[in-house]
Amino acid sequence: METEMPASVEIINTGNELLDGRVSNTNGQRMARICSARGLTVRRITVVGDALEDISAALKEALARGPDLVLLTGGLGPTPDDMTAEAIALALGRKFVLNEEALGMVKRAYERKGLELTTAVVKMAKLPEGAVPLENPIGTAPGILVEEGRTKIVALPGVPEEMEAMFERHVEPILAELARGLARYEARFLAFGVREADLAGALKELRRAYPDVYVKTHPKADEGRRYLEIYVATVSPSASEARKRMEKVIMELSEHISALGGSMTPLKPEEGA
Amino acid sequence: METEMPASVEIINTGNELLDGRVSNTNGQRMARICSARGLTVRRITVVGDALEDISAALKEALARGPDLVLLTGGLGPTPDDMTAEAIALALGRKFVLNEEALGMVKRAYERKGLELTTAVVKMAKLPEGAVPLENPIGTAPGILVEEGRTKIVALPGVPEEMEAMFERHVEPILAELARGLARYEARFLAFGVREADLAGALKELRRAYPDVYVKTHPKADEGRRYLEIYVATVSPSASEARKRMEKVIMELSEHISALGGSMTPLKPEEGA
Repeated sequence: METEMPASVEIINTGNELLDGRVSNTNGQRMARICSARGLTVRRITVVGDALEDISAALKEALARGPDLVLLTGGLGPTPDDMTAEAIALALGRKFVLNEEALGMVKRAYERKGLELTTAVVKMAKLPEGAVPLENPIGTAPGILVEEGRTKIVALPGVPEEMEAMFERHVEPILAELARGLARYEARFLAFGVREADLAGALKELRRAYPDVYVKTHPKADEGRRYLEIYVATVSPSASEARKRMEKVIMELSEHISALGGSMTPLKPEEGA
Repeated sequence: METEMPASVEIINTGNELLDGRVSNTNGQRMARICSARGLTVRRITVVGDALEDISAALKEALARGPDLVLLTGGLGPTPDDMTAEAIALALGRKFVLNEEALGMVKRAYERKGLELTTAVVKMAKLPEGAVPLENPIGTAPGILVEEGRTKIVALPGVPEEMEAMFERHVEPILAELARGLARYEARFLAFGVREADLAGALKELRRAYPDVYVKTHPKADEGRRYLEIYVATVSPSASEARKRMEKVIMELSEHISALGGSMTPLKPEEGA
């Protein structure tokens, strides 16, 4: 799957509620799903708590791996444990300054909601030097876009509705640019009557023969009945090219499973887990 | 919450299906929830793909932060992209060797299931030198326990049923030991008629006055009605001590919200998100 060298993404989700397991990291999963569908490779998802040093360290480490894009969520609000903007400034060694454009956005958001201006307004308008504020159509805290070398860094709020609206508006155009016309194509199958261990050798050979097609088996159990879910995917500039590539792998795998006495049937997307 | 210095945990979940968003990281959340409930502090959750170098790097980085426990999931099975055992050996600079005890476990699991022995058996019985295999009561791949300095490292399979059964059997005793009699106590409230930004100052003061009690506000919206969920928690050796500590904070916060014209009501655990 690396032949076209898809752009790479890292995701950092912040919030103590994620680290103590109270809340499922739906933001991380959703972002990962969309980035992958656009043909980008998500290399790592990191969850850290509401601590300046932890967020800053996670971002620094991500940048050191040289991704095209780092997406962060959470910690942009008005409370003292909202520290993502400052953490980005710290990680980049930039000043943490009042951004006039961001201040205008926060003020307009407050007016729209009929709220009184408080000192929280100023807090939410402070950004790393050189950053661009991203309009928040739902809440009050702007997002942040900042470039460091060849990496784009985007921070969005952790409230899922705000994250999703801002992702569509501000991140999708970046993904489209990074995707360079590529997209991920995928297919799923169920295999019965064959064990994962029996496919290990065949999978190894398939991967060697077709390095641009990704194949993975997932053992499943449903009321005691054990089967495999097989996931096949490729990143390609066209659906027809993707289909051609994947068909060869699917055919060979299917023949191999038949030879072992098992069977393999396509799984329609809506039946997927 | 740091007065008793709870033990610290890092979680590393491996699997391309987590990185591309196909699968929700329920293992990570579940482990985080249990560790937190036992009074331990989860400092980071990292998701990496099925790549030897990525898993090894994530573990090395976690170890450098000196946690008491690192929990890994995934990559213990028979297929060529199951590389967690080897990645642990690589991270620790240890040999990757056939473990006789593990071999016995895998053979017994195969016999129990009436399966023929294949080369996959040997693959699943290779562990970092000095590691202890952990019996898998459901699947075939043993888990791994290995100590490095003061840190315990435990690797469990990624299939949730196997992870859960093995967590209870092999990880709970480690958590009990690390908890040193501590546990987390928590309470949730809903606050209406008050905005998060208006509580920022009060929260800052409460945290300064009661550093061993954790308070966080989460803005929520339900059919357009906006309110706050307030989470209060403390790690303590006793429920009565915990209640005493938390009551002060809850009282002060409630008075503050009343003074602002809002109201705060307890949220029963079963109503929680």
